[in-house]
Amino acid sequence: MSARVICLSGGVGGAKLALGLYRVLNPWDLAVLTNTGDDFEHLGLHISPDLDTVMYTLAGENNTQQGWGRADETWTFMEQLQRLGGASWFRLGDGDLAIHMRRTELLRQGKKLSEVTTELCRALAIQASVLPMSDDPVQTVVVTADGRELMFQHYLVREMAEPVAREFKFIGAERAQPNAGLLALLNNPELRAIIICPSNPFVSIDPILAVPGMLDALKACNAPILAVSPLVAGRAIKGPLAKMLAEQQLPLNALSVANHYQGLLSGFILDELDAELAGSLQIPVRITNTVMQSLDDRENLARTVLEFADELGR
Amino acid sequence: MSARVICLSGGVGGAKLALGLYRVLNPWDLAVLTNTGDDFEHLGLHISPDLDTVMYTLAGENNTQQGWGRADETWTFMEQLQRLGGASWFRLGDGDLAIHMRRTELLRQGKKLSEVTTELCRALAIQASVLPMSDDPVQTVVVTADGRELMFQHYLVREMAEPVAREFKFIGAERAQPNAGLLALLNNPELRAIIICPSNPFVSIDPILAVPGMLDALKACNAPILAVSPLVAGRAIKGPLAKMLAEQQLPLNALSVANHYQGLLSGFILDELDAELAGSLQIPVRITNTVMQSLDDRENLARTVLEFADELGR
Repeated sequence: MSARVICLSGGVGGAKLALGLYRVLNPWDLAVLTNTGDDFEHLGLHISPDLDTVMYTLAGENNTQQGWGRADETWTFMEQLQRLGGASWFRLGDGDLAIHMRRTELLRQGKKLSEVTTELCRALAIQASVLPMSDDPVQTVVVTADGRELMFQHYLVREMAEPVAREFKFIGAERAQPNAGLLALLNNPELRAIIICPSNPFVSIDPILAVPGMLDALKACNAPILAVSPLVAGRAIKGPLAKMLAEQQLPLNALSVANHYQGLLSGFILDELDAELAGSLQIPVRITNTVMQSLDDRENLARTVLEFADELGR
Repeated sequence: MSARVICLSGGVGGAKLALGLYRVLNPWDLAVLTNTGDDFEHLGLHISPDLDTVMYTLAGENNTQQGWGRADETWTFMEQLQRLGGASWFRLGDGDLAIHMRRTELLRQGKKLSEVTTELCRALAIQASVLPMSDDPVQTVVVTADGRELMFQHYLVREMAEPVAREFKFIGAERAQPNAGLLALLNNPELRAIIICPSNPFVSIDPILAVPGMLDALKACNAPILAVSPLVAGRAIKGPLAKMLAEQQLPLNALSVANHYQGLLSGFILDELDAELAGSLQIPVRITNTVMQSLDDRENLARTVLEFADELGR
């Protein structure tokens, strides 16, 4: 059972499309190649925010109101930790803690992050493959306009993405190897599509592409590579992408994203609110609703993307 | 503000009398010298069961129904950890986790266990001094009849105290130093009493006394040393003491406990159900109700012990 569709995902936005794909495909036909550049050690725990979001989402246990974390969560730990003077800027739900604790324990036993992720997915009854981009540590760092280098979660959560981001570094990427399982999937002659989910290109997808060999391996495979715009009418559904584009003096629209992936894509999916941008793109474009509010939205977008891929792959 | 009453305590039973003393004394006049032989590392956390029980009890936050842990606890972490295949034999409540996590973090920063405990007590608004017996690791190990050496929590919780205990070892004790703050308290000319709480002599008090220099320091001070029997009518209120006595072929009564502390005590407190044992003791005895069901029971026993100490100290 080798997955035939690979999607590249960061956290929330990417996981929504991953869920749509998971539901319209045979579940084992999906592999979600997930950013681990946000991973960090906090309170002695190895925390993988994007892996967790993808897993909770595929398991149907993500907190949709909150936009992150587990559904039906309790917060006793955090209340008490705060009272005891512990760090409270990174909100850890009681049940969420279990996944960090278990991951940390298994890593300490010498297992690879990919093995640990497979074990956690099995426990959560997830039938898709969730693949960390690498078993090696890669640390996304935001270089701010005032010269600080912030670990990504420090930038995003602790400082609420307020500092001006001048540059992004992927510390350790040069020594990282791509997920070994991924390379096998890319060599599958039946591979149907590679889909870059509507995630932040700078801090969710670029860390994946920064792993040496990753970009070449993607380009070398026969399946079409599509990207879904994470911007709709110049705004990001969630997260600091629009702010980052502005800070780089780039146009606040989907073209900036498409240009960012130049040379990699076989096609691009634009939101219907951005239909007028289609003429400015040099690659095939599909226009559809990309805003995923309902489960139907997720499934419809997944179907459209797969149909588009099949047309391009013919 | 130097504590004038020192009590030696293990977990639940000891903590009950400590609370009584805390309530009838000026709170800062009490120091609770606490067993840390039960401390162990679990899931990467430094867990100090007796320190936690003493702290939760003095803070009025112990779970009286359950007999251990925090009141108003939630259990989401444990449910999820179990689901993810993690160890579930040691039940960690969501709020309880915070104290282990915070302690572990502060120890990793290089603080001593006594400093960490002071910091946690401050956060919990505890005005008494809670003193770990040592800043150095001492590990109570139960040697079983079938030749195994079990860490105390493994014996007590994981194996539910079922193995026959042949011997108790205090690994590391020979290299441990007594709590530095304690030694200052023992030199206080105004020291009023040293009280050995109704804790298990073999596994709660002996680890404290096994720290080199501890016994001599206690014997050298001028204040009377009293012990409250942890056995009432041949039965322990809680825990495996009666079973341990039987396994050592010792009489199942308070005399075994008094004999165990031979040479150390100025007086012994017997429960009224054991009044007939008084004549067999070679030291002054006070007979009173030692079963602490209500808060009044705790306070009454504390008052009786203090009065007895004052009489002996005159």
